[in-house]
Amino acid sequence: MPAVIDTDIHEVATIEDLLPYLPSVWHKYVTDYGWKPEERLPYTQPTAGGLDRADAKPGDGRPGGSDLGLLREQVLDLYDVEAGILTGWLNVSSTQESWVEFKTALVSAYNDWEIANWVERDERLYGSIHVNPWDADGAVREIERLADHPRIVQVTLYIGDQAYGQPRYHPIFAAAARHGLVVGIHHSGNAPTALGFHRYYAEWHTLVPQVFMSQAVSLIFNGVFEAYPELKVILVEGGFSYVPHLMWHADQQWTELRHETPWVKRPPSRIIREQMRFASQPIEEFTPAQLETLIGQMESDELVCFSSDYPHWDFDSPLEALPHRLDPGLRQKILHDNAAALYARLPARASAGMPA
Amino acid sequence: MPAVIDTDIHEVATIEDLLPYLPSVWHKYVTDYGWKPEERLPYTQPTAGGLDRADAKPGDGRPGGSDLGLLREQVLDLYDVEAGILTGWLNVSSTQESWVEFKTALVSAYNDWEIANWVERDERLYGSIHVNPWDADGAVREIERLADHPRIVQVTLYIGDQAYGQPRYHPIFAAAARHGLVVGIHHSGNAPTALGFHRYYAEWHTLVPQVFMSQAVSLIFNGVFEAYPELKVILVEGGFSYVPHLMWHADQQWTELRHETPWVKRPPSRIIREQMRFASQPIEEFTPAQLETLIGQMESDELVCFSSDYPHWDFDSPLEALPHRLDPGLRQKILHDNAAALYARLPARASAGMPA
Repeated sequence: MPAVIDTDIHEVATIEDLLPYLPSVWHKYVTDYGWKPEERLPYTQPTAGGLDRADAKPGDGRPGGSDLGLLREQVLDLYDVEAGILTGWLNVSSTQESWVEFKTALVSAYNDWEIANWVERDERLYGSIHVNPWDADGAVREIERLADHPRIVQVTLYIGDQAYGQPRYHPIFAAAARHGLVVGIHHSGNAPTALGFHRYYAEWHTLVPQVFMSQAVSLIFNGVFEAYPELKVILVEGGFSYVPHLMWHADQQWTELRHETPWVKRPPSRIIREQMRFASQPIEEFTPAQLETLIGQMESDELVCFSSDYPHWDFDSPLEALPHRLDPGLRQKILHDNAAALYARLPARASAGMPA
Repeated sequence: MPAVIDTDIHEVATIEDLLPYLPSVWHKYVTDYGWKPEERLPYTQPTAGGLDRADAKPGDGRPGGSDLGLLREQVLDLYDVEAGILTGWLNVSSTQESWVEFKTALVSAYNDWEIANWVERDERLYGSIHVNPWDADGAVREIERLADHPRIVQVTLYIGDQAYGQPRYHPIFAAAARHGLVVGIHHSGNAPTALGFHRYYAEWHTLVPQVFMSQAVSLIFNGVFEAYPELKVILVEGGFSYVPHLMWHADQQWTELRHETPWVKRPPSRIIREQMRFASQPIEEFTPAQLETLIGQMESDELVCFSSDYPHWDFDSPLEALPHRLDPGLRQKILHDNAAALYARLPARASAGMPA
């Protein structure tokens, strides 16, 4: 098996962990006001570990993803992971437009906590800049503050109920593109489906890919990719089996209706191939022929990047996620090369596909 | 070309057309209170004819789809249409829960207008029973009232923001199944996407398939197909290129989470193959190989039924919708045989696939 680049590893803080990194003026929101990240999901995950793999919890009451030792044991060492992209946990981006200044400060504290406790403690880990998209100016300041860190490779936006192609978010994409940072758009428990949250977790979870299609369409038709031709966006935790449908359907609608959005110069499928990528988890059970056909329908084998989603209950193992007799070249691309090409800031060793 | 069964032809009334069929107690809602069908769409269609093909308007100020002569000229005669399923226009099903008794009376008036002015004036036309799903008892009464009409083949539900797998709607599916009526679930301008209505029509229109995925998942996981094993549902105006993704993803989630909904005994892909069908419009531009691959991914060539969506602006012609060198057997199934098998009430001439 090739060395792996894992594009979705969650490192998890408790709110209290962040206090040392948070200016004292904001402490009372945590210590006195009891603020917690918003969660719109009207159910818990119906699994023994809840959101997490039961074995990913350190056993001291802290959540899965909070222990670097366990992450090493269960992912980094176990699978020969050359690089892991940290995607965080503090999904303030998906919450409502409330206590905006506090949340801007809190994600900034989170970023410092992430760098000190994860990025700088294992050379295989690369960080995301979390921002509060309800405060675009503050988000840009946060990107400027951290963009020069050599092990920061991404700006991560969690999905709530806002479409990120709206002009209010463009400065965030501009800043990311200016610094050569990928924008990772990640799912959250605040993301609805077209008909809300449904009666069962299995319904909602089956329909998770919808918000990714919505974000892709929003970015494309609002001209974000035309405005920032260097921008690269990866959609994380929605899988990729919807991509051929999205390409065909968006191309059809663009062909018929592009007089409405004349700033979109390229067919959406081409924009997707040139500027978007898709993290693999939760990958479905495919035969080699099924997966090769699906990749063929995308007309590019460079779009899918492996992700494990550690420590969540539906973790994908790099050993089991791809069908066993898949074409070795395609396996190499999905497990390693596509992410190495996407994250241009990864060191040459990674980019060259050499073993770690 | 084989004779065609068109599973989506819109016949359009003005509200005033319905007054002769509406009990006088309700007239004042139209004549005095100015009630109009709700429309949540925050844009009009950016085309020269608005919602309609410009040439489908009779020229007297009435909307496209209001003239039987034009329908004959532009569809029924032009393409050798053996049977056309009327899908109506009165999408009260998608409106809010308001003036419920009035709306129940109005759809009933609509059904009588449809039968008198369309179903009984051309032997190629078959009717839908429109119901107000906010009034399930009234909906069941309406189905019982009209189910014995020999040229009624369907109960049509328009999509708003409600998931039709909710138990409040089960009596409607029960009544349809009891009478051998297909349930047609049809799009409307009241159907949101996962992130609302977006800034441009092209965005919203690209994301139309989402509500169909939501309805399929809602019906499947809430056990509607298990409760009514004779039930057949066709999803109308969302195309079908999303179906392989939906099958793979729903099967994966069902495999992992089916302890949450133990009444779902079959994998979703099997439920879909056994009890769901998909009207073809708006079909994307496919090569023969692309379309055959897509049908192969569904593991059944019996799921897609041709539809034109006459008189709407994005009308699909039976001559042009399918790629020209498509396998003739598959063409025959999509243009005719699959719908003939679905609508068991169509006369034997239609079911046998004989020319009209």
